[in-house]
Amino acid sequence: MKKVLITYRLKPEGLKTLEGEYDVTLPTERSYFTKEEVLEMIPDYEVLVPNFSFYTDREIMDRAVKLELISNFGVGFNNIDVDYATKKGIVVTNIPNSTREPTAEFAFALLLAAGRRIGYYDRKLRTPEGVSWGVYAEGGMPVYGKTLGIIGMGRIGQSLARRAVASGMGIIYHNRNRLDKAIEQQYNARYVTFEELLRTADYISLNAPYTPQTHHMIAAEQLNMMKPSAVFINTARGSMVDEKALAKALKESKIWAAGLDVFENEPHILPELLELDNVVLAPHAATRTIEDRINMSIEMTQNIVGFYEGTYSVSRVN
Amino acid sequence: MKKVLITYRLKPEGLKTLEGEYDVTLPTERSYFTKEEVLEMIPDYEVLVPNFSFYTDREIMDRAVKLELISNFGVGFNNIDVDYATKKGIVVTNIPNSTREPTAEFAFALLLAAGRRIGYYDRKLRTPEGVSWGVYAEGGMPVYGKTLGIIGMGRIGQSLARRAVASGMGIIYHNRNRLDKAIEQQYNARYVTFEELLRTADYISLNAPYTPQTHHMIAAEQLNMMKPSAVFINTARGSMVDEKALAKALKESKIWAAGLDVFENEPHILPELLELDNVVLAPHAATRTIEDRINMSIEMTQNIVGFYEGTYSVSRVN
Repeated sequence: MKKVLITYRLKPEGLKTLEGEYDVTLPTERSYFTKEEVLEMIPDYEVLVPNFSFYTDREIMDRAVKLELISNFGVGFNNIDVDYATKKGIVVTNIPNSTREPTAEFAFALLLAAGRRIGYYDRKLRTPEGVSWGVYAEGGMPVYGKTLGIIGMGRIGQSLARRAVASGMGIIYHNRNRLDKAIEQQYNARYVTFEELLRTADYISLNAPYTPQTHHMIAAEQLNMMKPSAVFINTARGSMVDEKALAKALKESKIWAAGLDVFENEPHILPELLELDNVVLAPHAATRTIEDRINMSIEMTQNIVGFYEGTYSVSRVN
Repeated sequence: MKKVLITYRLKPEGLKTLEGEYDVTLPTERSYFTKEEVLEMIPDYEVLVPNFSFYTDREIMDRAVKLELISNFGVGFNNIDVDYATKKGIVVTNIPNSTREPTAEFAFALLLAAGRRIGYYDRKLRTPEGVSWGVYAEGGMPVYGKTLGIIGMGRIGQSLARRAVASGMGIIYHNRNRLDKAIEQQYNARYVTFEELLRTADYISLNAPYTPQTHHMIAAEQLNMMKPSAVFINTARGSMVDEKALAKALKESKIWAAGLDVFENEPHILPELLELDNVVLAPHAATRTIEDRINMSIEMTQNIVGFYEGTYSVSRVN
């Protein structure tokens, strides 16, 4: 029986696929295992399931003498040294299907909230000064009729585009590879250079994977290219954005607003951002509903069972 | 030259249609005229443009000896005694086109924010206690795959349905009159009784006009019929909801959350609501962007010019 080490206490409803056939270890005292605990246990395990915030590095893989599979609980896999896993012959999988719609949904929620000032109104109405109720006072930015620039037009980007089109937005996108014409036509999406996207989009959403190449891809230079009316959304990974430069751009109204679910040093948020009225902040919660977390667990377990038994398709990243 | 009295200081960009041909009076000292000021001026005017929060009652109409047209700056016209206007032979118009998409957009923004806890996260992250970043902690309610119940499936309701369908929601609706099959099919929308809607919808959006018949149509009895997981959205008029009963239902978790843009006694918000974490509050801002307010002004002026010159279609409500 293969031994599976799960670093976070996932709900049993999502782990039924493994029942009886796999020997599963979950944290019981705390909601998660520390790195030290994982280092101690890992030599006995064939499968490791890291939570997206658990960094699976060389040290862990060197101790993991039996490890065959890292079944990541997340779609982004920047928490895993995949190159090293590949060298050691360890397969790495991720969960793109169960995370697709919730993440696009949350990105669009942040987009609407940042544009139409939902977070601002809700906060300010609860303070003694309140918000003006005047016809033009403290108004938002329209979404209908505006252009959404999507950086990274993969599964999540396309699900976001579907929502945006139905909301009256036009779509431009930038991607490593241009999409098939049929997909472009589905969203009436136009492929543009990164710079054209930054210069012309009204709303900009980051939906690309984090890699060393995408580190700080949005920094002062890119923020300066954006319109003063631009709204920037990040539900991908915090390290793709120079957070200090973004806070400065927002503070100086170089761009109009931002909606952020991810940060450079989670769970730490740059204090400057916490002071700004033109940003909507969320605690890496794009897939955080009980139903979605269970669906993610199911997809994660199917990667394990599919890997060993061939009964499910497996989303391999190496 | 017809004299037009506008009760709120609307931006001149939206009033160009009237230039040269109409004698327009706007407030200059304050952003609005008081009722007393309007009562004093109104005998000289053929046209009155009330803001949606300016109540145009019998007293005003009795003084308005020359009044031919009330061109409302709003789609809802509960601020006007339309029956009395009809008796006096005064035409009343409203602006359904320019308000349609912004209102549906804002309703959907509140729906996503209330379900996915955007307001809550943004507020709590700025406090010393913050928000947990755990996998299951303080999670939201999914939107994708859920059923949206729309009460009042007119223009705004249908624009909301279009967004919801693209976001993976199923649509049920209740209306005074059942819609054409073709429209139902467009949104895959199912007509249900009011009670079935309340009992089965995951998200419920109020998009009906306020009339004496719809006063407090959502009260304790209706809230009790809703699922404990229900999310209630109101971008229509506050008086359609018993605000005290709603606050109680939210406080006792009889329903899961609410998103409110309108209130019974605007700009006053029930203090109990301001204390609740499971409500997202906005200051009657569904159409509050500069672009949308200008578009509303243009539609309002076209009602005036259309009424006198026949050059635009006129949206009459009596």
